Amino acid sequence: MENMNKEITSRDVDFASWYTDVVKKADLVDYSSLKGSMIIRPYGYAIWEEIVKVLDQKFKETNHVNLQMPMFIPESLLNKEKEHVAGFAPEVAWVTQGGSEPLEEKLCVRPTSEVLFCDHFKKIIKSYRDLPLLYNQWCTIVRWEKTTRPFLRSREILWQEGHTMHATKEEALEETLRMLKIYEDFQKDYLALPVIVGKKTEKEKFAGALETYTVEAMMYDGVALQNGTSHFFGQGFAKAFDITFLDKNNELQTPYQTSWGVTTRMIGALIMTHSDDRGLVLPPKIAPIKVCLVAIKNTEEVLDALANIKEELLKNGITCFLDDSAKSAGYKFAEAEVKGYPIRLELGPRDLENKEITLVRRDTLEKEVISIAKVNKVIPEVLLKIQDNLYNRALERRNSMLYEAKNYQEFQEIAINKPGFIKINWCGDVACEDKIKNDTTLKSRCIIPEEVDGPCCICGKDAKYKIYFGKQY
Amino acid sequence: MENMNKEITSRDVDFASWYTDVVKKADLVDYSSLKGSMIIRPYGYAIWEEIVKVLDQKFKETNHVNLQMPMFIPESLLNKEKEHVAGFAPEVAWVTQGGSEPLEEKLCVRPTSEVLFCDHFKKIIKSYRDLPLLYNQWCTIVRWEKTTRPFLRSREILWQEGHTMHATKEEALEETLRMLKIYEDFQKDYLALPVIVGKKTEKEKFAGALETYTVEAMMYDGVALQNGTSHFFGQGFAKAFDITFLDKNNELQTPYQTSWGVTTRMIGALIMTHSDDRGLVLPPKIAPIKVCLVAIKNTEEVLDALANIKEELLKNGITCFLDDSAKSAGYKFAEAEVKGYPIRLELGPRDLENKEITLVRRDTLEKEVISIAKVNKVIPEVLLKIQDNLYNRALERRNSMLYEAKNYQEFQEIAINKPGFIKINWCGDVACEDKIKNDTTLKSRCIIPEEVDGPCCICGKDAKYKIYFGKQY
Repeated sequence: MENMNKEITSRDVDFASWYTDVVKKADLVDYSSLKGSMIIRPYGYAIWEEIVKVLDQKFKETNHVNLQMPMFIPESLLNKEKEHVAGFAPEVAWVTQGGSEPLEEKLCVRPTSEVLFCDHFKKIIKSYRDLPLLYNQWCTIVRWEKTTRPFLRSREILWQEGHTMHATKEEALEETLRMLKIYEDFQKDYLALPVIVGKKTEKEKFAGALETYTVEAMMYDGVALQNGTSHFFGQGFAKAFDITFLDKNNELQTPYQTSWGVTTRMIGALIMTHSDDRGLVLPPKIAPIKVCLVAIKNTEEVLDALANIKEELLKNGITCFLDDSAKSAGYKFAEAEVKGYPIRLELGPRDLENKEITLVRRDTLEKEVISIAKVNKVIPEVLLKIQDNLYNRALERRNSMLYEAKNYQEFQEIAINKPGFIKINWCGDVACEDKIKNDTTLKSRCIIPEEVDGPCCICGKDAKYKIYFGKQY
Repeated sequence: MENMNKEITSRDVDFASWYTDVVKKADLVDYSSLKGSMIIRPYGYAIWEEIVKVLDQKFKETNHVNLQMPMFIPESLLNKEKEHVAGFAPEVAWVTQGGSEPLEEKLCVRPTSEVLFCDHFKKIIKSYRDLPLLYNQWCTIVRWEKTTRPFLRSREILWQEGHTMHATKEEALEETLRMLKIYEDFQKDYLALPVIVGKKTEKEKFAGALETYTVEAMMYDGVALQNGTSHFFGQGFAKAFDITFLDKNNELQTPYQTSWGVTTRMIGALIMTHSDDRGLVLPPKIAPIKVCLVAIKNTEEVLDALANIKEELLKNGITCFLDDSAKSAGYKFAEAEVKGYPIRLELGPRDLENKEITLVRRDTLEKEVISIAKVNKVIPEVLLKIQDNLYNRALERRNSMLYEAKNYQEFQEIAINKPGFIKINWCGDVACEDKIKNDTTLKSRCIIPEEVDGPCCICGKDAKYKIYFGKQY
């Protein structure tokens, strides 16, 4: 028990087992009796609460309002937009019985709520004065996945879904990119994830969208995690649902639509980017507890001193956990590392005599002895340093796994031998995209706004786009 | 359109239609295509967000942590506690199909989550050091009701459910009453509802509980709304799920359990207690928007002055809505009344010249002309007055509909002729409770801690309890 973090598989030995060990040992999730459904335990849920707090404020600052739609979609409603239903019907859960009676029409548990919002929009949009409608919903969705992994792919997913309607195409496109930028900034600034943003190919875009923009993160093992998407729908759903409005000239028009969402999958990205063989590592800006205070010996003086420090830090807005349990100091240190508290403060009777305390950074494991009088000044500075270091470290690693291939032989060599993303020139033809997938299992990540500088890497014809490929979770 | 609040049915003519008119006109809810499922629109959801903000903080202050359990319960898990499944199975929605395949075991959408928590508790509780476990979850539950009404009875319900485990019976009982008190105080202090708290009878208690405590509100029409419950489970579920822990003497013990919950039904109680024929009336402490600013004429000077006042109020933490739309002043006044903003400020060009503004209280509709310079001082005072007035007004009305019956003839006369609650001495026998229900449709509300002062009102035998009866929503 002394070294609970020794029970974690090394991430360089078996990345998948390491991930499962970390989420379990850090008490982030537990499996339920039902396959594919997980319990988000209090410490994992506290991370989600931090994420919700920040994003919800950003959504409100950009004039979005929250609401709550039903969780069930009648089959006939799901069927209204053809591409959409084709994309989602194979992976939904169906309610067929209410109480002891069979239902007249089966209902799916929402896998996403476009059709529910459209059904409502049709009733409430009459005039240009009703636009833009900027709605968001925090809720649980269900997708009946065959293989599941905590946070990355599960049958029930906590997420937010924005749904907006606009009078013009320009406004709707602006909104699509505005929300993409909010996701990008949030992931860089709070989650310390060095993400790549771009546009999905026709093949990979959302079922029913005209354009899908994506935030792509790269995990420690070089594998991609799609970490948020923003969709421009044009007028497709609006036409399928017969949604119209009277413009300023009293003429009937069809509005333009967007939707955008991020999920608890971001917690998976956090873990697979920053954590290590000792357990979780959390960026300070999103860590529910910033500082863990540990008594090396539980004497009354030491505990009093730590309680005072905790109180001072709390006044400064820095959340703390004082571990005053009867466990050994070594056990408590290990536990603090597993839980990923950004800073650990260790205090023993002799330190107290010297008016000093030991500060341990979780990101680097560096120890530093500081004066107790300076704790309130030093901690906020160190938290900022940790936040920056985590981002820069992840950026450096990510950049070391970005490749560029000039021809298909080069592409295949990299794809086989080196984990990471490969940038190429691409003609835009789905046949080339399919060929890569069949030959290497790599899928397109996103088209990026860079000039092409050569022919298509696969077929050799004229290239239209710069695009990243990579394996994905 | 000028008088949108004239479209609301009078509450004294038809209370049910009045209620439906208010929730629709105030944009709190809309019906979805699916019977019994409602859309909580942004303004309605904003009220729920205010409720969540306050209660979540109170739960955290009392050391509860949030988590998220799955939404599906396998049939075999639901069946583990016999009384519980008998109570809930008739009203659950069943998922029988995942994707295109039938499920091996059908899953119900949680109607409440006791069995899910117990299944988890069994895995994580080992020692007395793990207790108490103080968990809460904010989520959606489903109960397949036949007849539904917005907020009061719907198939999908937003709520919170607390689930706690304790080493001793005393601690668990203390927790049951602690949470009941939090509900009571919240409803009195924030929702301005003069509630009665007490204990449910054996017949009316929660399926599987040993004791159920309740917060009973009385609506404007004298009908009861059960507005929050707190349950003491004893060891029933723990034994059914084989949950044990090692105590300090290393002996195996069974823990004691509680659960407690409140729902969006509280929004229904708010409406049916305070609102009137002009629309919604919201207590300031829970109103998402405290002050509505209306320009009597949309001149640049007037709008600038209102924007300044709004900014000053916002600095003071007072949420505002500045209605600068092109609608007529009369229409905006009516709309502000329908929406129930606690205070309306009206400003016209002449008022501005006189450096004055008109303040209208939503609760009393009283108008007062005040100096613009004093707005920041006056508004917080008036908001407090409105909060107090709403509580006192509701208390007075509620008290005017509290009756006491000494014998069964008296009881029946009141039950037939007077809406409200009737207090009686009761022997505790379910036969007497049933007789009342059969003769009068009234159901027991709660047993209150008052001394009996006569024989049972129904059978004339020795009484054990003072108890309230009343019709219920």
